[in-house]
Amino acid sequence: MASSSIAQLLGTQLPLIQAPMAGAQGSAMAVAVSNAGALGSLPCAMLTPDAMRAELTAIQAATGGKPYNVNFFCHHVPVPSPQREADWRQALAPYYAEFGIDPAGIAAGAGRNPFSAEAAAVLEEFKPAVVSFHFGLPADDLLARVRAWGAKVLCSATTVDEARWLAARGVDAIIAQGLEAGGHRGHFLSPDLTRQMGTFALLPQLVKAVDVPVIAAGGIADADGVRAAMALGAAGVQVGTAYLLCPEATISAPHRLVLSGKIGAAHLHTALTNLFTGRPARGIMNRLMRELGPLGDVAPEFPMATAAIAPLRAKAESQGSGDFSPLWSGQNASGCKPIPAAELTRELAAGFSARS
Amino acid sequence: MASSSIAQLLGTQLPLIQAPMAGAQGSAMAVAVSNAGALGSLPCAMLTPDAMRAELTAIQAATGGKPYNVNFFCHHVPVPSPQREADWRQALAPYYAEFGIDPAGIAAGAGRNPFSAEAAAVLEEFKPAVVSFHFGLPADDLLARVRAWGAKVLCSATTVDEARWLAARGVDAIIAQGLEAGGHRGHFLSPDLTRQMGTFALLPQLVKAVDVPVIAAGGIADADGVRAAMALGAAGVQVGTAYLLCPEATISAPHRLVLSGKIGAAHLHTALTNLFTGRPARGIMNRLMRELGPLGDVAPEFPMATAAIAPLRAKAESQGSGDFSPLWSGQNASGCKPIPAAELTRELAAGFSARS
Repeated sequence: MASSSIAQLLGTQLPLIQAPMAGAQGSAMAVAVSNAGALGSLPCAMLTPDAMRAELTAIQAATGGKPYNVNFFCHHVPVPSPQREADWRQALAPYYAEFGIDPAGIAAGAGRNPFSAEAAAVLEEFKPAVVSFHFGLPADDLLARVRAWGAKVLCSATTVDEARWLAARGVDAIIAQGLEAGGHRGHFLSPDLTRQMGTFALLPQLVKAVDVPVIAAGGIADADGVRAAMALGAAGVQVGTAYLLCPEATISAPHRLVLSGKIGAAHLHTALTNLFTGRPARGIMNRLMRELGPLGDVAPEFPMATAAIAPLRAKAESQGSGDFSPLWSGQNASGCKPIPAAELTRELAAGFSARS
Repeated sequence: MASSSIAQLLGTQLPLIQAPMAGAQGSAMAVAVSNAGALGSLPCAMLTPDAMRAELTAIQAATGGKPYNVNFFCHHVPVPSPQREADWRQALAPYYAEFGIDPAGIAAGAGRNPFSAEAAAVLEEFKPAVVSFHFGLPADDLLARVRAWGAKVLCSATTVDEARWLAARGVDAIIAQGLEAGGHRGHFLSPDLTRQMGTFALLPQLVKAVDVPVIAAGGIADADGVRAAMALGAAGVQVGTAYLLCPEATISAPHRLVLSGKIGAAHLHTALTNLFTGRPARGIMNRLMRELGPLGDVAPEFPMATAAIAPLRAKAESQGSGDFSPLWSGQNASGCKPIPAAELTRELAAGFSARS
């Protein structure tokens, strides 16, 4: 698969996607990256329809018709379980006491919404060139609406089975999400985390397993990483963590500080954790993860874990602490730099040329 | 770090090491690979001094002075715990009953020995060009004996901290063992498995962290994998799993069958498990791992878990089953081919040249 093919598919100069990072970036990042010749992404999982419309309006105004990507989660919304919610608040009770928070005043709620008819209606106003999904695909009727305006459809796969499942449903490209990647694991056919593979193992096996172009994600931090992914047969790359220190990122001050290496170990210790949302996601190890264990049964089903954490996070962040924040990061944060996203995009683009 | 440097260091034509795989290969594999211009390895963790002497005699006779590597584990031998041994045998009791094995007749024992004065004495007779260690380094006096005949010393690192620890102790090269790798994880500073990284994240961070040449291991299955590792800054590569179907490998018939894709899923499901030895090691998921859970507290400390499994393994293998065998494999078995090790070495070597 020639690298030009995925750029042609996406309509970009470069076969490079800025990974959608819900809660860590909005339209400003997408605009900067799309204007630099790659594919900027707007994560929509945490946006209301009105917020989505405002962000898409901003992107279209600032990019002058250049392609961009909108990203959605495709989870099943669980029936809330009062028992699990009570158990979860019980586990967090010592922290509520420490911060003087009255748990009775905490609203329940999902915090993250799956792709829906409402979201499709907003997209129909803007007709984005690319729509990417995480946790599988939406229902057929919703997917048909996306295809109706000619959008290219991308989705993450974390196993060979998932890649074949997606290829059989006609996605235009598959994102091979290696275990190194930050944020939520995109698995959707099996919750067994032992099935999750490092990029070095996952990527070439997906390339061999499906005829669809495969985009590499997970651990790619710089132009050398881009070169390595292309050597393994990728048709393009998706990079997230490296963009987190760009001024366009909207991460919290404690998140920025720890990624800058200003506090803590120079080399970050990340882990998969389900404490912040209910699904495993990779973030920098912090107090909550250490004290409760990063993965376990105590957190309710995705995305129900978020609400009970929210006031702890807000209080801690107001004191400059990331002890209760999801500090999403991949395992390779060595590419993080406080430079504009356009400049970082150009640095990554050097990986598509022969080494000088 | 130019790729020529590690070949120069090792005294080989190619900057390629055949990974030592205890229980899966002996001198025949090492001979074939060293004669093909790479560095063949003899794993010694499961060899008595006499067996080691016989294997080294065979290698020296067949390689005519070409360099080869001998590999040792550097674990602390635990004080046997009668309670943990009893708990372990209790957990296995249903299987003993199923196979008609009398547990009273099972000998306890370690099965794997760390590098020792006895081993050093054998090596002094042969003076191998390269000695590699797993689980850290031996005591200073033992290491001094290895250095006395001019051997180059290599050791695995799985974190930045471990790489710095090894560099400070003067190792000649560091093997960056990514999480994709088959067999035992080489970690020795922290048992926390969340610290283990995929090759895409680990390798470039080690290259940046230390001045010592870094050899990539984990997920490298073919010439493209070699190219990718070199793009990420490796000074050389170490490949294990891809050699497992070579006729020189000594794996069991069930192990060979499942790797050949003749039974089970075409794409292998591996997991880290401590059931077979007491330390986490990557192998193909089988019945014992599924039924007891691949990782847990039930197995005694390394290497004490092995003895109680041995009769189950023997009985099952005699019936053609790998249900109780350690089926070591990395996450990327796509490079396994039933071709001579020399031929596989030449195929991998193509990755050191520019793509044609």
